[in-house]
Amino acid sequence: MRIAIDAMGGDCGPQVMVDGAVRAANDFGYEIALVGDNDVICLELEKYRWSKELITVHHASQVVGMEEQPAQAVRRKRGSSINVAVNLVKEGRCEALVTAGNTGAAVASATLILGLLPGVKRPGIAIVFPTLYGISLLIDVGANIDPRPEHLLQYAIMGNIYVKYILRKQNPSISLLNIGKEESKGTELLRETYKLLTDSGLNFIGNVEGRDVFSGRSDCIICGGFIGNVVLKVLESIAETTTAFFRRELEKSILTRLGAWFCRPAFLALQKGTDYSECGGAPLLGVDGICIIAHGGSTAKAIRNAIKVAGGFVNYKVNQRIAGEIGKWERRGLLKLSA
Amino acid sequence: MRIAIDAMGGDCGPQVMVDGAVRAANDFGYEIALVGDNDVICLELEKYRWSKELITVHHASQVVGMEEQPAQAVRRKRGSSINVAVNLVKEGRCEALVTAGNTGAAVASATLILGLLPGVKRPGIAIVFPTLYGISLLIDVGANIDPRPEHLLQYAIMGNIYVKYILRKQNPSISLLNIGKEESKGTELLRETYKLLTDSGLNFIGNVEGRDVFSGRSDCIICGGFIGNVVLKVLESIAETTTAFFRRELEKSILTRLGAWFCRPAFLALQKGTDYSECGGAPLLGVDGICIIAHGGSTAKAIRNAIKVAGGFVNYKVNQRIAGEIGKWERRGLLKLSA
Repeated sequence: MRIAIDAMGGDCGPQVMVDGAVRAANDFGYEIALVGDNDVICLELEKYRWSKELITVHHASQVVGMEEQPAQAVRRKRGSSINVAVNLVKEGRCEALVTAGNTGAAVASATLILGLLPGVKRPGIAIVFPTLYGISLLIDVGANIDPRPEHLLQYAIMGNIYVKYILRKQNPSISLLNIGKEESKGTELLRETYKLLTDSGLNFIGNVEGRDVFSGRSDCIICGGFIGNVVLKVLESIAETTTAFFRRELEKSILTRLGAWFCRPAFLALQKGTDYSECGGAPLLGVDGICIIAHGGSTAKAIRNAIKVAGGFVNYKVNQRIAGEIGKWERRGLLKLSA
Repeated sequence: MRIAIDAMGGDCGPQVMVDGAVRAANDFGYEIALVGDNDVICLELEKYRWSKELITVHHASQVVGMEEQPAQAVRRKRGSSINVAVNLVKEGRCEALVTAGNTGAAVASATLILGLLPGVKRPGIAIVFPTLYGISLLIDVGANIDPRPEHLLQYAIMGNIYVKYILRKQNPSISLLNIGKEESKGTELLRETYKLLTDSGLNFIGNVEGRDVFSGRSDCIICGGFIGNVVLKVLESIAETTTAFFRRELEKSILTRLGAWFCRPAFLALQKGTDYSECGGAPLLGVDGICIIAHGGSTAKAIRNAIKVAGGFVNYKVNQRIAGEIGKWERRGLLKLSA
């Protein structure tokens, strides 16, 4: 197992990426190809104990910045770390890649270079997030902001496999994010998708509303990339906002400060329970190769966990299973894939 | 000032609506017309001390249920409490109405019977919600799930007036809910709207992302009704979810239970800070009459506050100001209102 790491991506760049990669190599015994500026990466590597058998460096002369226009940057900067990492997968020299860089660039690079799995019409980013009762999957959170019903059905098929093999839940419950429970609710897109999902043979439990996202009612929530991205960012901000609010309130008196000290375990549990680094990265499902996208603000632990997810994808043959399922659907003629 | 109350709406029906109405009459001296089943309302009224000069009952023989298909129900049940209440406003016998019933029915009834303010193309539901720093406005949260750029511009014009006169903030900052800060982000709808808002003369601060919703960065956030509805419901579920999570964690040991007791003021502050009943109801902006929609799960206090908001609309002539602003825009020819 050999995994390529875009070592230049993320808000903190090589510092965090190299740290996370070393942890993953040590913890899981995976081979790691660190992709980026040779000198910078070697300087970072000096801080750690690592095995030359497990970690190698692949030079890349360019970087796609976090704020760059993705599609353009990927085409112009052919030697960028994300492109070089994706190419290592394309050429079969690595089995997966992990990046915390510009998400749009990762989607563009992986889609252009790796292409899509046979039958898949659009890739989708799937994110696991903590709920009151365990973790759930939300797909898509930004790869496809103008989806068609068939795309959402394919997300459900891919999400189902992800939950089954990576999150290890049998018969995952699939739901559609909407503004009401009834089949008639929402946009034309969602009403069409509802029908497709009902006939899909998946464990489709119907529409869920915004208030159900956090409840853990559904193992896998399907939505378009625009709404998914907004909801994801709202969810991400909750822990931060709640903590900031509590801190302000708890510092108001000596008694509440004392109380806060006693309550520490509960606060730590909330922090841990809503910590995205616990969940690892978000796979770009549907591309013909394994591409795990980590949060730009990832810690070294989050990168380590994203690499673990990449390893899980390889071990459980997730992409082969997706291609198999999508192929079955195509043969059954149930997917009217017109574009 | 006389305000019509749909006394049959809401999850708890007349029990809560009558309680809230009596509180508003006593606290603000408003005249109240309670609309619904005469016998049921009179029975409820017996529980309170109230003035016959302030509170009257208007019989309505039908009720639109919370789960009924809105447009159909409003047309079939002509004598429903929501229709009777809206008609009291139409006929000038009341100056505003408050309902906690079926939101879709309220939108349909108000739009059909009252019509729209001159120049307004679509009504929008505006909701105030608590953030880290004061309260913000989100519009639209469900009246219009397939908006056009001009509709969103009109929401900004109406939201601006609401924040200025009801929330009493000078020069409100207006933003557009999107998946990135850059003008080029998001759907065609949002890119078009971005241009209209930039040229609008409003204090448009650009796009905000999901993570900014709760931060209080913007006084008024503009979005389509689908995304607004999902975000609203996610926000509503946060207090509940966080509280449930903390309760579970804090009950794990005697020390954390003791700590929780000391921290009580902070927990109560969180509850109050995220309590929608503090904010009152959501106005349906753009209709030719004042219609305040309260949450189905409203408490009596929330109903009282929704009635207070209705009073504010009357006192500050919000609808006249909206009609004036929209009129100015039309005359300037800046609104290409084609449909």
